[in-house]
Amino acid sequence: MERFTFQNPTRIIFGVGSIKELEKHLPIGKKILLLYGGGSIKNNGVYDQVLSGLKSRSFVEFAGIEPNPKYETIMKGVELSRKEKVEFILAVGGGSVIDAAKFMALAIHYNEGDPWDILVNNTAKKVENVVPLATVLTLPATGSEMNAYSVISRESTKEKLSFGARSCYPVFSILDPTVVKSIPPNQIANGITDAFTHVLEQYLTYPAGAPLQDKFAESILRTLIEEGPKVMKNPGDEVAAGNFMWCATMALNGLLSAGVPTDWATHAIGHELTALYGIDHARTLAIIAPNLYRSVFDAKKEKLAQYAEEVWKVGSGSVDEKAKLAIERTTDFFHSLGIKTKLSAYTTNYEGTSEEVLTRFKKRNVKSLGENNIIDLEKVKEIVEMSY
Amino acid sequence: MERFTFQNPTRIIFGVGSIKELEKHLPIGKKILLLYGGGSIKNNGVYDQVLSGLKSRSFVEFAGIEPNPKYETIMKGVELSRKEKVEFILAVGGGSVIDAAKFMALAIHYNEGDPWDILVNNTAKKVENVVPLATVLTLPATGSEMNAYSVISRESTKEKLSFGARSCYPVFSILDPTVVKSIPPNQIANGITDAFTHVLEQYLTYPAGAPLQDKFAESILRTLIEEGPKVMKNPGDEVAAGNFMWCATMALNGLLSAGVPTDWATHAIGHELTALYGIDHARTLAIIAPNLYRSVFDAKKEKLAQYAEEVWKVGSGSVDEKAKLAIERTTDFFHSLGIKTKLSAYTTNYEGTSEEVLTRFKKRNVKSLGENNIIDLEKVKEIVEMSY
Repeated sequence: MERFTFQNPTRIIFGVGSIKELEKHLPIGKKILLLYGGGSIKNNGVYDQVLSGLKSRSFVEFAGIEPNPKYETIMKGVELSRKEKVEFILAVGGGSVIDAAKFMALAIHYNEGDPWDILVNNTAKKVENVVPLATVLTLPATGSEMNAYSVISRESTKEKLSFGARSCYPVFSILDPTVVKSIPPNQIANGITDAFTHVLEQYLTYPAGAPLQDKFAESILRTLIEEGPKVMKNPGDEVAAGNFMWCATMALNGLLSAGVPTDWATHAIGHELTALYGIDHARTLAIIAPNLYRSVFDAKKEKLAQYAEEVWKVGSGSVDEKAKLAIERTTDFFHSLGIKTKLSAYTTNYEGTSEEVLTRFKKRNVKSLGENNIIDLEKVKEIVEMSY
Repeated sequence: MERFTFQNPTRIIFGVGSIKELEKHLPIGKKILLLYGGGSIKNNGVYDQVLSGLKSRSFVEFAGIEPNPKYETIMKGVELSRKEKVEFILAVGGGSVIDAAKFMALAIHYNEGDPWDILVNNTAKKVENVVPLATVLTLPATGSEMNAYSVISRESTKEKLSFGARSCYPVFSILDPTVVKSIPPNQIANGITDAFTHVLEQYLTYPAGAPLQDKFAESILRTLIEEGPKVMKNPGDEVAAGNFMWCATMALNGLLSAGVPTDWATHAIGHELTALYGIDHARTLAIIAPNLYRSVFDAKKEKLAQYAEEVWKVGSGSVDEKAKLAIERTTDFFHSLGIKTKLSAYTTNYEGTSEEVLTRFKKRNVKSLGENNIIDLEKVKEIVEMSY
C-alpha cells in the first residue's frame, strides 16, 4: 500500500424522505443561492420540497446549469451571487449542477482576474474566501456530492477542465433514493456506467499490496452489477435505487484511491470526446475504457484477471484468458444498459478524432496518461482509433 | 437500507514513516498534552519520533494510561491539563490511550460537577468547550483513532461505560505500519480479534437490503483472515501490517453501520467480563460472540449463512448448516490466533458470573440487547453460561 492522506468532511444525509430534513441542515442567517439545472426538479416534486426547506431562509435562485456545465452560464450565476451577496450555495441536481456550484464557490470572491485562470493555472487549492456549498442530489453518477472535484467546460474554446480543492467539499449532501424514479432511463444508464468506470479507474492498474482497497472496489462493482439492472427495470424500487445511489457516492469519495495507484486516462480521453462532440460523459467512458485495457493489456492484465475472478466470477483460465474475458464482460455490461461503446454510434464525423485529441493534448502539454505514465500520445491515438 | 447520517472528519495520515510528518499536522501556538501509556513507546522509537515532532511546540507529558483506561488515572491527567492550561491533546498509543484522551477532552473544562456524570447520564454530546485531540496509533485494534467513541472503566465501582460525541473525533490520526513490529504477539492477536468482532457486530444481524455495506464488511473480514496470520508470523511485514492497520480503522469508523441494523450485545456482555476479571477486551469478545450466535441462531442464521458463503467460501449445505459452519470457522480463526474462547481458560472463579452480569445489567436498567432487542436477560444468562 502506498502512503496516503484521507479526509472527507462531507455530511451525508441518506434515506427515503431525507429531502424533508433540508431545513435543519441549512445555515441560519446566511443568504443562500438555490442553484439548479434545466427545471426537471419542478416536475418531480424536488423543487417544492426544497422550497419548503428554504422558507425560513433568505435566498435567490439561479437556474439553467446545463449538462457538462458551461463556464459562460456559470459566470452569470457568479454575477448574480456577487450582486446578491450570496453566502452559501445549495446545489440541487446531478454532477453538473454540483460541479458548477464548486466553481462558483471559488469564483464569487475571486478578484485576481478571470476565474477561468483557476482552471488553466490549476490554482484552485490556493483560492481563499470560498463560499460554502451543500447539495441535494437528484442524479446518482459522478460522486461530486461527496468529493472536492469538479469539471467545467468552456464553449468558446471547446475546453473541458477539472479542478479539485479541499474547500470544495460539500458541507452536506442529501441523498434521497425517491429522486431516482423520475430520472429518464438513459440517464440512469449513464449514472451506473459513470460510477462503474470511476471504480475501474482506481482499481484496474497493477497489484499494489492493498487487498482491502481492492475488495472495496470489487464490492461496489458487484453491487452495481446486481442492483443496476433492478433500477433500470424499476426506478421506483427504492431499495435498489438507494443502493445504486450509495455506490455512486462511495465510488469517488477518496476512499478507493487511498493508498493505491490510479489511472484516470479513460476520463482524460473521454473528456475530449465530450468537448468535441457533446457525447454524454458516461458514454465516452464506455467507448474508451475497454479499448484502453486492450491497448495496455500487459500492464493491466494481472488486475484484469483479478477483476474477472472476483467480480465476474470467472473460475478458470490463464491470466491472459481471464483478463480478456473481463474486458468482454465489461463491454457486455455497458451494452446491457443500452450504452453503445463505439464512437461511430454517436457521430458520423469521427474520422480524424485521434489527431484532434492529440492536438488538444499537445496544446495543454499533456505527454502521457495513466498509472506510471504508461499511455503516451501514440497509445492515445491507438485507443481512440480502436474506438471508432 | 435504513436512513442514516454519516460524517467522519478525521484526517488519516497513513504510511511507513508517517510519524515523521507529525510536526506539520500539529497546531501552532497551542499548549499540547502528550498522553501515553506504560512507556512501551520509549523502547520502540515512537517516543523519540514524537518528541522530534513536538520540538517546536510547548507541551507537557502525562503517562501511565493503563489498558481499560481508568477514570481515577485519567482524572490525574485532567488535573495536570487544567493546571497547565492544555489546549490540544496528542494521544500516542492504542485504543486505551485514545479513549482516555477523548474523556479528558470532555472533562478538562467540565464544571458541572464530577465528569463521571457525563458517562452515567450519557451527556457527552451536550458538553461544550471540548479540547481537540489527535492521535499517533501504536496498536491497531479498536478503531478509536477514527471514531468518536470511548470506553472508560472506574476501578472503585468496577464499572465500564462508553460514550460517543461528535466533538471527540480526532482532528488527525497518524497510522504508521512500522509500529506493529514491536507489538507483542498476544496484543496483535487481540487487535485482529477486536477488529474482526467490530465488523461482526455490524454485519451479523438480519438482511436489510444493504448489499454494499454487507460487501464492505465481508471485505474487511476476508482481509483480516488473509493478512492477520501474516502479521502474526512476521510483525515486521510492513505491507501486511499496513493492511491490518487499515482494516482495524475501517472496521469502526461509522461506514459499515451506515444504513444497517447493528448488534453490539457481544461488546455489552464482554465489557462486564473485563470489568469483573480484567480479561483483555478482545478476548471477552471471542468468548461471547460464538455463543451469542448459537443462542439467537434463528434470528441471525440468514446472515450467518451469507457470512459462511462470502467470507469462509462455504459452497454447499442448507442455510442452517452453513450458518453453523460459520460459527465454527469463527471460533477456529480465534484459536488460530492463540485466543482462547472459554471463560474458564481465563479464570477459575467463573461460577456465578451469569448472575453477576445480570445484577449489573439490572442495576443500570438494561433490559435487552442486540438488534431488535432480541437478547433479553434470560438470553444473556444463557450466553454467559454457554461461555464457561
